[in-house]
Amino acid sequence: MNGSIIRYIIGYVLKIEGLLLLLPCLTALIYREAEGWKYLLVAALCFGLGFLFNIRKPKSNVFYLKEGCVATSLSWIVLSVFGCLPMCLTGEIPSFVDSLFETVSGFTTTGASILPQVENLSHCTLLWRCFTHWVGGMGVLVFLLAVVPLSGGSHINLMRAESPGPSVGKLVPKIRASARILYFIYFGITALEIILLMLGHMTLFEAANTAFGTAGTGGFGIKNDSFASFSPYLQWVVTIFMILFGVNFNAYYLILYRKFRKALLIEEIRYYFLIIGLATAFITVSLIRSSVGAFDALTQAAFQVGSIITTTGFSTVDFDTWSQSCRAILVLLMFIGACAGSTGGGIKVSRIVVMAKTVKKELNSFIHPKSIKKIRIDGSPIEHEVLRSINVYLITYIVLFIISVFLITLEGHDLVTDFTAVAATYNNIGPGLAMVGPVRNFGFFSDFSKCVLIFDMLAGRLELFPLLILFHPVLWKEVIAQKKKSRTWYRGSDR
Amino acid sequence: MNGSIIRYIIGYVLKIEGLLLLLPCLTALIYREAEGWKYLLVAALCFGLGFLFNIRKPKSNVFYLKEGCVATSLSWIVLSVFGCLPMCLTGEIPSFVDSLFETVSGFTTTGASILPQVENLSHCTLLWRCFTHWVGGMGVLVFLLAVVPLSGGSHINLMRAESPGPSVGKLVPKIRASARILYFIYFGITALEIILLMLGHMTLFEAANTAFGTAGTGGFGIKNDSFASFSPYLQWVVTIFMILFGVNFNAYYLILYRKFRKALLIEEIRYYFLIIGLATAFITVSLIRSSVGAFDALTQAAFQVGSIITTTGFSTVDFDTWSQSCRAILVLLMFIGACAGSTGGGIKVSRIVVMAKTVKKELNSFIHPKSIKKIRIDGSPIEHEVLRSINVYLITYIVLFIISVFLITLEGHDLVTDFTAVAATYNNIGPGLAMVGPVRNFGFFSDFSKCVLIFDMLAGRLELFPLLILFHPVLWKEVIAQKKKSRTWYRGSDR
Repeated sequence: MNGSIIRYIIGYVLKIEGLLLLLPCLTALIYREAEGWKYLLVAALCFGLGFLFNIRKPKSNVFYLKEGCVATSLSWIVLSVFGCLPMCLTGEIPSFVDSLFETVSGFTTTGASILPQVENLSHCTLLWRCFTHWVGGMGVLVFLLAVVPLSGGSHINLMRAESPGPSVGKLVPKIRASARILYFIYFGITALEIILLMLGHMTLFEAANTAFGTAGTGGFGIKNDSFASFSPYLQWVVTIFMILFGVNFNAYYLILYRKFRKALLIEEIRYYFLIIGLATAFITVSLIRSSVGAFDALTQAAFQVGSIITTTGFSTVDFDTWSQSCRAILVLLMFIGACAGSTGGGIKVSRIVVMAKTVKKELNSFIHPKSIKKIRIDGSPIEHEVLRSINVYLITYIVLFIISVFLITLEGHDLVTDFTAVAATYNNIGPGLAMVGPVRNFGFFSDFSKCVLIFDMLAGRLELFPLLILFHPVLWKEVIAQKKKSRTWYRGSDR
Repeated sequence: MNGSIIRYIIGYVLKIEGLLLLLPCLTALIYREAEGWKYLLVAALCFGLGFLFNIRKPKSNVFYLKEGCVATSLSWIVLSVFGCLPMCLTGEIPSFVDSLFETVSGFTTTGASILPQVENLSHCTLLWRCFTHWVGGMGVLVFLLAVVPLSGGSHINLMRAESPGPSVGKLVPKIRASARILYFIYFGITALEIILLMLGHMTLFEAANTAFGTAGTGGFGIKNDSFASFSPYLQWVVTIFMILFGVNFNAYYLILYRKFRKALLIEEIRYYFLIIGLATAFITVSLIRSSVGAFDALTQAAFQVGSIITTTGFSTVDFDTWSQSCRAILVLLMFIGACAGSTGGGIKVSRIVVMAKTVKKELNSFIHPKSIKKIRIDGSPIEHEVLRSINVYLITYIVLFIISVFLITLEGHDLVTDFTAVAATYNNIGPGLAMVGPVRNFGFFSDFSKCVLIFDMLAGRLELFPLLILFHPVLWKEVIAQKKKSRTWYRGSDR
């Protein structure tokens, strides 16, 4: 394994984090908050370490999928550990595990919080929490690819490890240009949302925080009641933007280049809107039957469906009090998730569509055993390799899910809490049901359970394998073997 | 599609059912119960219809997988509908849906009951309930293959549709001989259990019913408290036989032919015992910590683990009162299920093992992308086709599971009840948790939910696809097209 290139990338990640931390510093300056100094301190620390890591150029630029995965996972861990330090130092979240939970929840765009009261936080911490969503949504390594000129090596492996979905397509042949276009679109839609929110009489601070949370499909808010106290106009703006950020960004790229027809024909997006439509309709009818006004019912249903399927996790009502079937639909949406290539989490609509087509094909093969039809998405056949990886993804997904639920049950809460706590963190949503419902928080879990949930959030965001291979014994054997080799070589040259 | 061969097979199934119904008649004769007449009546009806169906020989013996699946599903439906009539007629279970639920639960070896009190039933009905387990365990079509000389056609498709597991191996080249060996082993072990139970001071009636329930890994008992009131000796006999009936029958075949080493080396069976061992150990320790005596804890843990993993569903304690992690383990075991080629339900250990190996292989491929290793079971590589079918099975399994849970939630019970009710019927186990826990029953569900659960039991027993293709539009188009064609032909010859 090429360890030096990984060190080099982590160095850059630290420097970027230092840069990002200047935004809360600026906020602290505006609101004259003393907490800003802690942010500045950590920013300086990040810069310092980053430069230290970058002094020596990597020995070689060789860069395979393995290096991509390890670099991505380690970057995310480093990002989270340094990102949680300011909250720890300011004493706003004194426990290290708690603030790590909060920060991982931020970067992975989960939005699950251990805080019962967010309105007590300083402005700079509030902004930093929401800003982590924005950074994590599109991915810090995609950002790195956009700004840092990394020469040689197949750096698509970095993007592949960080971007959600079964297959990563470069928008344009050059990876750097692709990353820039992605961030350009991301930045543009976020800015548009901030403007629309400010038109609804939000302050810039509120609008920016809300837009960061929506853009990353995160879920951290700045009010204790999430969105219940905002006007219907604001709720609808947020609903629409949540759903927009759950769309495959390829569509925006196509729209940007005026290929409207092609954008409309993307199968995943049509199914995505179909699912949202059906779920909203069902819940609206159910709410009207329990005597909620028609417009309110539609507003509530659309907001909650958009929030859950895109794995954002905002809420305007306590959906834990809804009927069993509405709650079951929400749990189902938690697993489906948004489109591939969006900022949302979950299993992803495209994977679900492929799986449904696989089942249909299998049934056909019972009737016509000799027919050989390939499964098609958007008219073109799916590669065998992609199909296989989707199946393996699903199996791994289930295995990890079961292990996590089991580890959480050791604490002895009820099964709905345990099940939905894992579902909400693993799919990067935020709130679950029962004790982790939308008006509750994750603070009551033990540190052990919190660590399990932190792992789940990272595994969910990085889509399992990049994180899992960190635990693969073969990788460590290789690393140790290389260390030994280089030491022997060093001794040899010493004589 | 060859409809005439399907009619012919169903005719035989009806005749076999008529024959089987004579056993409760005999019981009624011994215990001098008037209910016996109703059983005799239905037996006569089955014989009559069976002969009617068999008068005309099938036009052709052409027999593909399609015909195998349709014949199997229809046979099971016919078997259940006629099997439930006596209970309906005697008035012991007056509602048709209820008695159908009870009978399907019997034949599919689920063991979920709608009866709060089983001790009120007549002896003949008690015996019939348990006997359906025995018949359904090995399969009525396997029995048919063993006794009826069906010439021509690839009748392995019947066995394939009915026998559980990812791939069906004939024990010996001749399918009829295979079916006979299977029933010989099945009969032998059942007889052995009856003898051992009678040595523990059970009456023949009690021993036979218990053995039928164990052999089919069913779960219907003859006492309201299942097995709580029996002696530890009897509990251990049942524990051991439950676990034995969950073993792949290939092992018994190998033992029968003195290939002990080969039998011991079957990978699935070793994992099966490993899982049982680990789960029992964990639960035993957990029970001892909540101050149950060591021997009692082991007895209770082993019994419940054996009962749930083999999907039998007997119980000696109310495991719904156990700790969350013990309950979570039991839910997990519900899904794992017994070995392929046994009488147990669930996903099957072999499928789980293959899935685990797939995940391991995928992780390796991240580190060594160019290595091409095939997944091996028992030392030989698995065919690509089997791997694919296992993946598709899993996906279909999940899809059906989700739809079922959703349909049940429409009734508005708590999520644990809904989830475990579907899990317990779909995996052919019997009891779930909460409102369908081991000391409760399924009687409170609406008729609609009961029908969903009936479908789940059949889908679980026939491993999804044979039942699902009954609902495939292409099949019906074909049937309708053939009808039209034969009518035109008939008219043509008329002129």
